[in-house]
Amino acid sequence: MSQLLPPDDPETDADADGAARPHHHHLEQARAQVIQLLSRQSVEKELLSRSESRNSDVVAQLVARQHQAALEQRLSHFHPADIAFVLEALAPEARDLAWTLVRPARRGAVLLETSDTVRRALVMSMPPEEVVALAGSLDTDDLADLVSSLPEEARQQVLERLDSADQAEVRSMLSFPEGTVGSMMDLDFIAVREDTTLEAVQRLLRRRKLLPAHTNQLFVVDRGNQLRGLLPLARLLLGDPEGQVAEVMNPRPVYFYTDDPSREAVAAFEKYDLISAPVLNLHRQVVGRVTVDAVLDEISERAQTEGLRQVGLTEEDEDLFAPVVASAQRRWPWLAINLATAFFASRVIGAFEPIIEALVALAALMPIVASIGGNTGNQSAALVIRGLALGQLGSDQLRRILRRELSISALNGALWGVVLGFATLLLYHQLPLSVVIAVALMLNMSVAALVGVLAPVLLHRLGRDPAMGSSIILTATTDSMGFFIFLGLAAVFLV
Amino acid sequence: MSQLLPPDDPETDADADGAARPHHHHLEQARAQVIQLLSRQSVEKELLSRSESRNSDVVAQLVARQHQAALEQRLSHFHPADIAFVLEALAPEARDLAWTLVRPARRGAVLLETSDTVRRALVMSMPPEEVVALAGSLDTDDLADLVSSLPEEARQQVLERLDSADQAEVRSMLSFPEGTVGSMMDLDFIAVREDTTLEAVQRLLRRRKLLPAHTNQLFVVDRGNQLRGLLPLARLLLGDPEGQVAEVMNPRPVYFYTDDPSREAVAAFEKYDLISAPVLNLHRQVVGRVTVDAVLDEISERAQTEGLRQVGLTEEDEDLFAPVVASAQRRWPWLAINLATAFFASRVIGAFEPIIEALVALAALMPIVASIGGNTGNQSAALVIRGLALGQLGSDQLRRILRRELSISALNGALWGVVLGFATLLLYHQLPLSVVIAVALMLNMSVAALVGVLAPVLLHRLGRDPAMGSSIILTATTDSMGFFIFLGLAAVFLV
Repeated sequence: MSQLLPPDDPETDADADGAARPHHHHLEQARAQVIQLLSRQSVEKELLSRSESRNSDVVAQLVARQHQAALEQRLSHFHPADIAFVLEALAPEARDLAWTLVRPARRGAVLLETSDTVRRALVMSMPPEEVVALAGSLDTDDLADLVSSLPEEARQQVLERLDSADQAEVRSMLSFPEGTVGSMMDLDFIAVREDTTLEAVQRLLRRRKLLPAHTNQLFVVDRGNQLRGLLPLARLLLGDPEGQVAEVMNPRPVYFYTDDPSREAVAAFEKYDLISAPVLNLHRQVVGRVTVDAVLDEISERAQTEGLRQVGLTEEDEDLFAPVVASAQRRWPWLAINLATAFFASRVIGAFEPIIEALVALAALMPIVASIGGNTGNQSAALVIRGLALGQLGSDQLRRILRRELSISALNGALWGVVLGFATLLLYHQLPLSVVIAVALMLNMSVAALVGVLAPVLLHRLGRDPAMGSSIILTATTDSMGFFIFLGLAAVFLV
Repeated sequence: MSQLLPPDDPETDADADGAARPHHHHLEQARAQVIQLLSRQSVEKELLSRSESRNSDVVAQLVARQHQAALEQRLSHFHPADIAFVLEALAPEARDLAWTLVRPARRGAVLLETSDTVRRALVMSMPPEEVVALAGSLDTDDLADLVSSLPEEARQQVLERLDSADQAEVRSMLSFPEGTVGSMMDLDFIAVREDTTLEAVQRLLRRRKLLPAHTNQLFVVDRGNQLRGLLPLARLLLGDPEGQVAEVMNPRPVYFYTDDPSREAVAAFEKYDLISAPVLNLHRQVVGRVTVDAVLDEISERAQTEGLRQVGLTEEDEDLFAPVVASAQRRWPWLAINLATAFFASRVIGAFEPIIEALVALAALMPIVASIGGNTGNQSAALVIRGLALGQLGSDQLRRILRRELSISALNGALWGVVLGFATLLLYHQLPLSVVIAVALMLNMSVAALVGVLAPVLLHRLGRDPAMGSSIILTATTDSMGFFIFLGLAAVFLV
């Protein structure tokens, strides 16, 4: 944590490691090559460890060691984010091999860039002492990120081994719940006083040799450490050196409280094109900052897991190389729910068995009504979920959308109902059956639109993620209702 | 475009409008209030326009005008992004009313923040002269963004009315295809020479009064305008004023070419935590820059439309207030495909009608096999789509994942097949039927895993978006195969 410019704070410069970055095309090639080599190496190593026991192939061993040294050399030129990419793309044995080739001093930086599951796997494979040793190369907030992704027991082991000042800081960072601004902030801000001259600020900055990454502005605070404004570096550069900070600072900046939801910070950064913003505690004292890179990580993490959440998978499933049995088990709740709703739909059909026996064409046609209902409803649901995510659905808007989706589905239901009716007439030469399926399709599409709009809204009002469960509710409804409407109409009018 | 510091370039400061931003909670309230007021106002106006024709209610008209003036006043304190939010949340009539209340000088900035569809609707409602007048308040790249979202005819009308220099610049910006780095770059970079002293650079910067937003570094170029390195503002501030740019610059920066895909820029910004990066043409000359706010826009635009694309909706459907008939029509292709695949599945069942007639329980049970297959396959597909998006699926990894998903589905298929078999036994008291449905579930889950992995990979190899169509292919396959496997086994073993 840096305030009032402690001159010897060992911060990293935003571009200090820039020298290691060539054009990204070369990078992608280099990465793919290393992934291939590592995969091959780990197989060779496996073979060697077998032949070693027979003490037969000394030359092969030497060659393998040479290859490893070459790989280690290549990895040492990679950016930590690229090493993380390589680790995530590798199967577990190859990943472990690769990890031993990453120099200990860089392991902390690499761990910060990996996904939670891969990070956990790697850290779990290291003794706590080694994890604590890594900690030395990390900032408090990065250390807290690292520790927070560990299982409870490993977390305590690492925390106990930290010195007491670090321990207190990390524990205080860990106290911010997941999903709050506190959990995404860092402590690398520079604070100055209003009555300082720009020249004095520049002098103070020069004493440090590096600025924290993403420092586009300094935070202006009073004696009580309360936020007074922001001093953009550009104004510091361009302003009159004799002038005071108060004269050029932005006195009404965007700020956050530690317990604001992180999605609000994300929204504000997107909207106002921010690079960094101060974070205050309840006494309006500056305690940290949020930077655009943390916001980017948050957004892409969320976007990447969105698809998984929609089909009931969790963060743990991100690791494509997790053990099969554990992965199979994680899918049970979803399968159980799916089985239950499918069974219910089956019972709806079961109730109409006599009618199906009398007119077996109904069995062949009923899945069409159910399937189109499901897809129609999913379209309405996708629009509503997006509107909810953007916060654009007040009750006025909601009523309007419901009306609108019902109109669209009535229109399309009428049109495609006629199409389906004609197809049925061509196949079965039964006009009453064709009329029944046309009407059933239309009705089920209206049900689908209704449920498609209301299911996500209901989940949202109950404080749940509207994307998570709406497709189960929806398909369960459109299947059962599709069968019920179609077979019910058939029972009344056909048999 | 600013190079070698033209001192009178009218750039905007990153935080020049910061004074208008209170804490975001108040903002959300203010926004919701204005949206409500505007919705109400537009209804009142509608009523008034009717009463006006009767010349009856002069007082009501006066009141309405007063309300409008108050609203105009409130909107004038909003950030352009907040006004855009308000416009997007409003129904068309209220939106048009709100637009008349936005001061002309701010309309350009507001349009840049709205979604493409709303922007198009607003611009289409203005005569070309007015659009050209807006253009005066915008940078070339912003103007190009604005023009590019217009329909062809309106675009030409606006372009022809620009002065020839602007026209050439806008046309050259428009020449970069959607999805390339060129289309997301701006021209607001500041370039300096290697042999300048830091002091001279600072002096040059002071002559401009403002720096372009997101200027965290200056671009160092040679006489041919080729990129030599980057000079972070922090180093300019902290370095020895007598020293030369070449001594402190970052000589190996991340850069892009105009025709690089924009997703590569997005990936690089995420990975290397960049704020800005230079964009080069094929002669390695600096022609523009990408900033983190353009990257953020790109990511959130993509994330927001992801859910829509998965259910076959397009960008146009984002406008929740578009006319019903047009929206209904846009859903036709998807409905047609869905109807065709559902019809095919129905024909599969049709082929087994005699067996269903003989054992009507099959009709009730068959949707269960199809439905669970669909969900299983969607889980595999979600994992593969995510892996593809992250670029982590080489052929080695692919084979591994295929094996893995097949194992998981075999395991879960065996387990839940037994569960379903028992449930069937309890309901129908027929052991052979129970065995058939258990085996059918297991087989269809393996088919689902296979197609779930291969469908997105195939789409990806064909250069298509793997998320877009895979769920159609998948559901069509698991439905048809589910019915075929279950009814086929029944035909062989039961009747």
